[in-house]
Amino acid sequence: MSSLAVASTTELSRIEPPAIADIEAAAQRLKGKARLTPLLESTLLNDRLGGRLMIKAEVLQRSGSFKFRGAYNRIAMMTAAERANGVVAYSSGNHAQGVAYAARLFGVKAWIVMPADAPKIKMANTRAYGAEVVTYDRYGESREAIGERLTREKGAILIRPFDDPGVIAGQGTIGLEAADQMLALGLSADAFIAPCSGGGLIAGCAVALEARSPATKPYAAEPAGFDDLKQSLAAGKRMEVVSGAKSFCDALLSPWPGEITFKVHRRLLGGSFAVTDAEVQRAMAAAFEYFKIVVEPGGACALAAVLTGQLPVKGLTVVVVCSGGNVDPATYAAALAAG
Amino acid sequence: MSSLAVASTTELSRIEPPAIADIEAAAQRLKGKARLTPLLESTLLNDRLGGRLMIKAEVLQRSGSFKFRGAYNRIAMMTAAERANGVVAYSSGNHAQGVAYAARLFGVKAWIVMPADAPKIKMANTRAYGAEVVTYDRYGESREAIGERLTREKGAILIRPFDDPGVIAGQGTIGLEAADQMLALGLSADAFIAPCSGGGLIAGCAVALEARSPATKPYAAEPAGFDDLKQSLAAGKRMEVVSGAKSFCDALLSPWPGEITFKVHRRLLGGSFAVTDAEVQRAMAAAFEYFKIVVEPGGACALAAVLTGQLPVKGLTVVVVCSGGNVDPATYAAALAAG
Repeated sequence: MSSLAVASTTELSRIEPPAIADIEAAAQRLKGKARLTPLLESTLLNDRLGGRLMIKAEVLQRSGSFKFRGAYNRIAMMTAAERANGVVAYSSGNHAQGVAYAARLFGVKAWIVMPADAPKIKMANTRAYGAEVVTYDRYGESREAIGERLTREKGAILIRPFDDPGVIAGQGTIGLEAADQMLALGLSADAFIAPCSGGGLIAGCAVALEARSPATKPYAAEPAGFDDLKQSLAAGKRMEVVSGAKSFCDALLSPWPGEITFKVHRRLLGGSFAVTDAEVQRAMAAAFEYFKIVVEPGGACALAAVLTGQLPVKGLTVVVVCSGGNVDPATYAAALAAG
Repeated sequence: MSSLAVASTTELSRIEPPAIADIEAAAQRLKGKARLTPLLESTLLNDRLGGRLMIKAEVLQRSGSFKFRGAYNRIAMMTAAERANGVVAYSSGNHAQGVAYAARLFGVKAWIVMPADAPKIKMANTRAYGAEVVTYDRYGESREAIGERLTREKGAILIRPFDDPGVIAGQGTIGLEAADQMLALGLSADAFIAPCSGGGLIAGCAVALEARSPATKPYAAEPAGFDDLKQSLAAGKRMEVVSGAKSFCDALLSPWPGEITFKVHRRLLGGSFAVTDAEVQRAMAAAFEYFKIVVEPGGACALAAVLTGQLPVKGLTVVVVCSGGNVDPATYAAALAAG
């Protein structure tokens, strides 16, 4: 694997990540819209691990992943005039569905740029929510360029999947909720870990935890071959992976951390862990067995990092985000068989 | 299929079903012990059905099914002296795990009588909770006789899977919770449907709904070939199915409704629906796709009754209990492939 330093864009480099007040405002906007997802726990798995594992089950979120939170919050922050021209998003599938569903709730037109090889269920659901899907070749074309062209043509607003303070604030409501839920149980988490692509989810949660549960150290998990955050944290600057790797974690294939999100990552994260497809399959099977939830490959990376022992849980209490459940039946069945 | 009227036992015929106060007392005992399971909803499935379907996700309950509620409530009602000799249960697997886990929480010894062909995961988990498992041949031996012999030998208390007012009251807390959750959403359910074997779950819920949501009609769903409740409701008395049928709904193979539970069924239920294994597989696949929850065959019967149109949902609001998720990976993968 090799990697390259990523150039900064002037536009994004000037934008600050959300503060706790922005995440609290997002939580107010999402009240009654996003589901307050449960924290799940398995006595049998805790016995096996010798610690306490709490699953924040975002697979149960509307649209089947956490992405609805950021998308809804971003559209809620727009003016009526901005909403009138519609929104554009590029996404491997979960941000697509989150934006499509949020746009539907606001009665806003949505164009979604998706890789042609995205899971069928993600593409079908994005269309079913009423969005127009534009496909591209994941390994040959730039989704950013297509998204920006569409934005110019339609006069619509681009909702970036992670490098947007409104999106990051929406995802951060998961950290707020988890901190409140742990407090209500009389528990304090030693660590909190979430899957990471561009890093909006863990950036938002890290800001929320810093304010609400400062004793909880946040971590990220990434697919092996796409561990750009791990490399970036080591280098102290944003790095792009150029390994040519492929992973079945279709939701987590961003080659670099976001420019805004990395400002949070470098300041607050305890680290990032890389997990192989086989390790992720075992995590999907464990979620099936112990928690009865359907977790997609990318959604199971953080659980994989715990089950492989990279993030220790023995004698500790760890909150793990299972971030999405939009997976084709065949991919899921293969994971159960392998797991 | 043929059927026989079932004789009444003097002991059980004298016992009255729980009243709403018993269910409220059970809810108090279960507070902080049982999980308040979420009500899930899918916009895409609602679009398809033209109505509003709310899933009470008891697959997320401790021990992987609703059975923990009744088991815990029953043990909580015992005296310390009664608990000292331990408990016995017979079960195809979910009551087994529910009793084993509840007994563990109380530090009580548990002997569990299980069919030798019970799903491997159910037997393994029952042992993992610390219970002693005694196996028998489902099609040749009487689990009731083995359970009663063990009870005599050990001086332990038998926790019947459904014909026990304490157990029924525990399961009825699902109806209480669902009524409260619907009220909080500003919704009123036209119908409520739950899977049925001996009928403790739907009996308890029917009593709860009569008190808390009288406009909601309760229904049951059973595997085809084991639709003893449907036949009993038609006959006006308890009937035993003697069809020799087999079903993959391993949790729902009781050949008759309970004696105590049927007193509630005949008074309050709107009916019971029979569903085939193929229809149940499609319901398991729908729960995977739309709700991201793992539902076992028996747990998906009520959803199957709605998806086949036997219980109409068009223009209506229906609460469906998905009652358990303890299923072997191979059985689950086969359902996804067929569904």
